Amino acid sequence: MKLTILIHCADQSGIISSVTSYIHEQHGNIIYLDQHVDKEAGVFFMRLESEFENDIALSEFKKLFEETLAIRYKMKWNIHLDGEKPKMAIFVSKYNHCLYDLLSRYNSGELLVDIPFILSNHPDLKYIADQFQIPYYHVPISKDTKKAVEEKQLKLLQEHGVDFIVLARYMQIISPEVIDIFPQRIINIHHSFLPAFAGAKPYHAAFERGVKIIGATSHYVTAELDAGPIIEQDVTTVSHSHSIKDFIAKGRDLEKIVLSRAVQLHVERKTIVYNNKTVIFS
Amino acid sequence: MKLTILIHCADQSGIISSVTSYIHEQHGNIIYLDQHVDKEAGVFFMRLESEFENDIALSEFKKLFEETLAIRYKMKWNIHLDGEKPKMAIFVSKYNHCLYDLLSRYNSGELLVDIPFILSNHPDLKYIADQFQIPYYHVPISKDTKKAVEEKQLKLLQEHGVDFIVLARYMQIISPEVIDIFPQRIINIHHSFLPAFAGAKPYHAAFERGVKIIGATSHYVTAELDAGPIIEQDVTTVSHSHSIKDFIAKGRDLEKIVLSRAVQLHVERKTIVYNNKTVIFS
Amino acid sequence: MKLTILIHCADQSGIISSVTSYIHEQHGNIIYLDQHVDKEAGVFFMRLESEFENDIALSEFKKLFEETLAIRYKMKWNIHLDGEKPKMAIFVSKYNHCLYDLLSRYNSGELLVDIPFILSNHPDLKYIADQFQIPYYHVPISKDTKKAVEEKQLKLLQEHGVDFIVLARYMQIISPEVIDIFPQRIINIHHSFLPAFAGAKPYHAAFERGVKIIGATSHYVTAELDAGPIIEQDVTTVSHSHSIKDFIAKGRDLEKIVLSRAVQLHVERKTIVYNNKTVIFS
Amino acid sequence: MKLTILIHCADQSGIISSVTSYIHEQHGNIIYLDQHVDKEAGVFFMRLESEFENDIALSEFKKLFEETLAIRYKMKWNIHLDGEKPKMAIFVSKYNHCLYDLLSRYNSGELLVDIPFILSNHPDLKYIADQFQIPYYHVPISKDTKKAVEEKQLKLLQEHGVDFIVLARYMQIISPEVIDIFPQRIINIHHSFLPAFAGAKPYHAAFERGVKIIGATSHYVTAELDAGPIIEQDVTTVSHSHSIKDFIAKGRDLEKIVLSRAVQLHVERKTIVYNNKTVIFS
Repeated sequence: MKLTILIHCADQSGIISSVTSYIHEQHGNIIYLDQHVDKEAGVFFMRLESEFENDIALSEFKKLFEETLAIRYKMKWNIHLDGEKPKMAIFVSKYNHCLYDLLSRYNSGELLVDIPFILSNHPDLKYIADQFQIPYYHVPISKDTKKAVEEKQLKLLQEHGVDFIVLARYMQIISPEVIDIFPQRIINIHHSFLPAFAGAKPYHAAFERGVKIIGATSHYVTAELDAGPIIEQDVTTVSHSHSIKDFIAKGRDLEKIVLSRAVQLHVERKTIVYNNKTVIFS
Repeated sequence: MKLTILIHCADQSGIISSVTSYIHEQHGNIIYLDQHVDKEAGVFFMRLESEFENDIALSEFKKLFEETLAIRYKMKWNIHLDGEKPKMAIFVSKYNHCLYDLLSRYNSGELLVDIPFILSNHPDLKYIADQFQIPYYHVPISKDTKKAVEEKQLKLLQEHGVDFIVLARYMQIISPEVIDIFPQRIINIHHSFLPAFAGAKPYHAAFERGVKIIGATSHYVTAELDAGPIIEQDVTTVSHSHSIKDFIAKGRDLEKIVLSRAVQLHVERKTIVYNNKTVIFS
Repeated sequence: MKLTILIHCADQSGIISSVTSYIHEQHGNIIYLDQHVDKEAGVFFMRLESEFENDIALSEFKKLFEETLAIRYKMKWNIHLDGEKPKMAIFVSKYNHCLYDLLSRYNSGELLVDIPFILSNHPDLKYIADQFQIPYYHVPISKDTKKAVEEKQLKLLQEHGVDFIVLARYMQIISPEVIDIFPQRIINIHHSFLPAFAGAKPYHAAFERGVKIIGATSHYVTAELDAGPIIEQDVTTVSHSHSIKDFIAKGRDLEKIVLSRAVQLHVERKTIVYNNKTVIFS
Repeated sequence: MKLTILIHCADQSGIISSVTSYIHEQHGNIIYLDQHVDKEAGVFFMRLESEFENDIALSEFKKLFEETLAIRYKMKWNIHLDGEKPKMAIFVSKYNHCLYDLLSRYNSGELLVDIPFILSNHPDLKYIADQFQIPYYHVPISKDTKKAVEEKQLKLLQEHGVDFIVLARYMQIISPEVIDIFPQRIINIHHSFLPAFAGAKPYHAAFERGVKIIGATSHYVTAELDAGPIIEQDVTTVSHSHSIKDFIAKGRDLEKIVLSRAVQLHVERKTIVYNNKTVIFS
């Protein structure tokens, strides 16, 4: 049996030795430990993977953890049993490159999730959902229907027990209501090196500015547009010889890799959000 | 004899064949030609290096070029004789990494310029100027002396026949009057991936935002702060584990390499500015 | 009408002006020109894109080009009419990431080719061919059947009029006979930064050596294993904390992007091979 | 008071909790902990930084550490008191870029070492040593004098109490005798992406092979040439348009940054060597 433990709390002396001693007493072997202290904020973060020879009672383990450690250090914590597959909904509009990249990783067993459905405000990508035999909900949006659409989205998300949502170039703004229900559980890909070129048409803005490098940014969605905690970024070089069309084409390769990496980090429980920033364990 | 020719003009049919035929008629051999068409703006750019077996009369060559080509195509053009060393003034404040990098390249013959002087608003780096035996002018600036200081700067620049200025982490704003006299001939290094984090304290802002990549940008100085034509950019990865101090340390290596590359491109006549952007020939 | 012209020949004075004058006389407008001179080898390379307002007779254009330019300068040349789709066969074994990446680009119109078939020595990836409705030939190979299999491969390639072959992690050596028939028209992806770690199991070798960066290399296949002209390379960082399994996972993302970029360069006629190296026009 | 503790030993259950409990008992606060398990080799590695409010007796701390922990787990360990400056000798030949980079970092307080001397087989770079007021020993080498030269080198190293040696483009092979005396304490910069292009003239070999990326590698020197444990690597892109001279110029920037990073990692006690590989703590 393998457990992944994520902790954060106010920084204090003795936390690591207390937690590792607890694991040791429970006959666990620590196979990975990484910790980080944000000195300015005075916050301690830890990720720990531990193997147990015999299956232990998880609920008992958690109860004792809470009583002996979490209360004492005022921890926020999560303990995940290895092998649990989170349920991931994908929202798309018309671009297919991120969707294809996610689905091909899913299909080859690289991305260990269940995908209950794909949702889109356009019918265009239904053929891909069909290729991979995943339900596709076409939920068009207009100014007038926005409220009703959100309710429909929430209903679908709840009916399918969705754990987190991936916006794979979904060109609609997610409502604060949905964000509140999925805090730090909606992952977006923005097609620029944030905070440069937030908002619409970043490649056009980058071209206009004459930058020599373009980027892509994957982040958790918050109420403020393109301002959520950054999970992953990457860049590629461009030159005067590239047109906006070239920027877009080069950007596609960035977007799909950066989004898939961010999703993988989330699935592997390697992210902790704090102060609108992320701690990413390696 | 070797000439480097830079041209830009409205895009028209036949320019390349006209120019290359002219070179050919003058018994020149083209050893490098690169051209670019900005289709949106309808502008043609070309850089051409040509060798001539016998020394030709440069003034005659330029006169004929003007009469037979430049007038016909309404070209803006420059012809540089190989081996001319431009005069480069360096402005610094207190950081020494960019200064050391420029001077070590200068000293080893990698950077083919003359350096008539280094100017600073602080006395701190005089010892480096002394190490490399270059005159160092300490010109302190305060609100009250600003006007007088600018005049002193201009006088120094003109007395020494300076061709272009490098701001090697010079922490003062250059006045519009100086910029007007040195258009596209003042090169700055900004310690962020512009347009993200323009202005003061970019590493602090990057840290605050929780980015996963930081950068440096070298650009020509224009009246608008940190908004001039970008010459060169580069980036490096950071993580939650890096403090602001780490950002600054990692950034230093970026800054000095990016600035030196931009200076080298300028010295090798590989840049053309148009529409607040650069065409950078390889 | 748009033509792409590729030329290489011994370097001589006057080639560019002769070629551009010819285009000009034929009422063509040059929209792209890039040239390169390999000074050591004394070879001139040029790529040129030209638009013609009226449709011209291509055969007549080529005939005149041959008579007035190619013979005179002893050129090797190719002229491609824009919009021709080359026929690309894909060979795979069991890994699906490169195949998915190529097919998703093909499906979205990013990769302008026809794909007459996918061939594999294993049946495993037939389901992907089915997803994209492309014929899949399962041609198993053993020591005894090698000769017969090659004949079968050649027959398929010829029947379908294949222009070039992409080895998308095809784990068999291509026979010299097939290479001879498709010179510089078989593109392979090798999962290392060549020439480091040529041959089998490069990720294991990289792990063993303790490198801090791994790479992928796409090259044209020649008789000597992993030694053909390199088209494209890219790298990513690794550390002691990555296992061989991590190397392989990180490598997958490199492999698919590097292979797809190389295929795109080939399809866009941006490669010339000379002296077992490539000239790659941007 | 701050201590940095480096440990490696056979992997066993309970090490982390034992060590962190020991620190805790000694009234230390752990401000950094990173550990790594090489599962194939079954080896545990840890780096730990700890602050102590009151100055403790270091010899007593070490003695107890040895008795209660090191013996029990059969650890190899090092405990460094913060602020100790190691003595670093620099060996150079004729290239100055790495030397300038190291000295400018040293001079600005970025690199916390003492530099007792610079040694060279050529007199060329003495002027730089003079610029920075560091003793320069010119020790020429020929086949006949090799033995005597080594003895002279060893004498200088011992007289000055040198802790480690940096080969800043020193173009001579270090003898096994010197390597034995400074195991994992001689840092070299090789101007290629090892293991590609080991040995002499790597840029020429890279040019010949037509690679699209070149690199630099910093490693600890072992008896086998260019085969020691890699500390740091980095790369940059090249194209057909770059000559060997361009490769060398681009490479210089890589070499100096990669070497300085490796030296910094060594100075900050962030490297452990095992099995001819390095564990590099971040």
